[in-house]
Amino acid sequence: MAMKSERALQLCLLWLLMSAILLKPADCHGRKKRLPKPCKHLVLYFHDILYNGKNAHNATSALVAAPEGANLTIMTGNNHFGNIAVFDDPITLDNNLHSPSVGRAQGFYFYDMKDTFNAWLGFTFVLNSTDHKGTITFNGADPILTKYRDISVVGGTGDFLMARGIATISTDSYEGDVYFRLRVNITLYECY
Amino acid sequence: MAMKSERALQLCLLWLLMSAILLKPADCHGRKKRLPKPCKHLVLYFHDILYNGKNAHNATSALVAAPEGANLTIMTGNNHFGNIAVFDDPITLDNNLHSPSVGRAQGFYFYDMKDTFNAWLGFTFVLNSTDHKGTITFNGADPILTKYRDISVVGGTGDFLMARGIATISTDSYEGDVYFRLRVNITLYECY
Amino acid sequence: MAMKSERALQLCLLWLLMSAILLKPADCHGRKKRLPKPCKHLVLYFHDILYNGKNAHNATSALVAAPEGANLTIMTGNNHFGNIAVFDDPITLDNNLHSPSVGRAQGFYFYDMKDTFNAWLGFTFVLNSTDHKGTITFNGADPILTKYRDISVVGGTGDFLMARGIATISTDSYEGDVYFRLRVNITLYECY
Repeated sequence: MAMKSERALQLCLLWLLMSAILLKPADCHGRKKRLPKPCKHLVLYFHDILYNGKNAHNATSALVAAPEGANLTIMTGNNHFGNIAVFDDPITLDNNLHSPSVGRAQGFYFYDMKDTFNAWLGFTFVLNSTDHKGTITFNGADPILTKYRDISVVGGTGDFLMARGIATISTDSYEGDVYFRLRVNITLYECY
Repeated sequence: MAMKSERALQLCLLWLLMSAILLKPADCHGRKKRLPKPCKHLVLYFHDILYNGKNAHNATSALVAAPEGANLTIMTGNNHFGNIAVFDDPITLDNNLHSPSVGRAQGFYFYDMKDTFNAWLGFTFVLNSTDHKGTITFNGADPILTKYRDISVVGGTGDFLMARGIATISTDSYEGDVYFRLRVNITLYECY
Repeated sequence: MAMKSERALQLCLLWLLMSAILLKPADCHGRKKRLPKPCKHLVLYFHDILYNGKNAHNATSALVAAPEGANLTIMTGNNHFGNIAVFDDPITLDNNLHSPSVGRAQGFYFYDMKDTFNAWLGFTFVLNSTDHKGTITFNGADPILTKYRDISVVGGTGDFLMARGIATISTDSYEGDVYFRLRVNITLYECY
């Protein structure tokens, strides 16, 4: 009997040791952490209607800066290099601009490459629906012509307090320089 | 005796199992983490004096971008939609502009809604006092007319290395378009 | 024998208790976390050639905003206060502009102090080499005349998924207002 418990004790100590070794470096402060399972997942669309001098009524964004020689109603040549747009775009659950909005995408983007379409984004999803109340803030480069591109979720508030993760953006539709719709596939790995 | 130790061993193993179950999903990589207790808390004020063409001497911020048809000394109509301001504002411990500064709030804001006052903020508190040396960087939407609004703490350096948390902003005072003072209530949940 | 196992059991329980006490507050959700060892370390250079009205061919950045009274080909007086530049700069492994590029630094900076050179940065390293594929996004204040200044790593994608840490920036070289080269020493504390 005592022998048995002795063996069990050894097993217990062994397991303790193993769990101490495995738990600490792998989960809490090791050199490389195991990616946790996503804790939240959302797919949302937002719709940007750029002011072009004629659509003041329904435009949701406007150019506010441009490089030398350019103006603020026509996008620059050079793949719009240097244009900054400020936006307040409706967010919908599907790809229909006229669907009820579940929040606003607010922020700015600018074009930053001369030889291709490429942007940098800083914006916040301000969600206010029965499902979600809170904000998610995004930052990152957007190589527009790539089908799927990842940007970083850098923070959040409310239901998304201190959210971390990534968003995979794809251009769902566009019409010239005036309208584009982005599909945003958000995967959060830290939720509180 | 052996029986007793056997029972204790069973308890030990049970506890191990329970702690393994509880510790792992709840604290380190579960689907939803328990919010830790705040590890740092600061209340600071910053003061923004916007350049209006006449106050070059004491202005701490200036418009640098605006939509088509607007200029850079008068805020736009449409709730300032499209105006970008760059700022370097003093930070104080109380609501007095003339109190000794404990650092500078540096960054930019822009107005992004046509039908109400709403801004988006990207800025850094550069603190340099006996109490705090380091930076805290903030990002997020600012629905100005709401009494308390939360933005994200997205990072930090020095005393605030890799800070995460939120800041609750409230407009403590304002004078037309020239002066506003924000109270920033910072709650950090990750400190190193 | 049984006595021995009893003592060992007590030790085992004691250790469990200690590890429960030590592990939980210290590593996972305590008031202040121990800084983990860095999990990734990179030193990279990026090269900014600012458009000045004559170098359209090889410029990698351009002024797109400026305060009242200024233009977009000459940096403002007042330490460039209010100038916003948008950039798409080559990243190299060493300090040679003509070395093969391992990616692009894309984003914007603006000058935000009237009495000294000081900037605020928001940009992303888009890395695409055999060593690294992914993005790292940075935010923070840049007191240009300080030899070493820290900014925050606020997120990442690909190889740098959810990266957190800091980057120590130093001005490696500059030529008037047209060229500067930054050395970026990146230390990540969270890697997945």
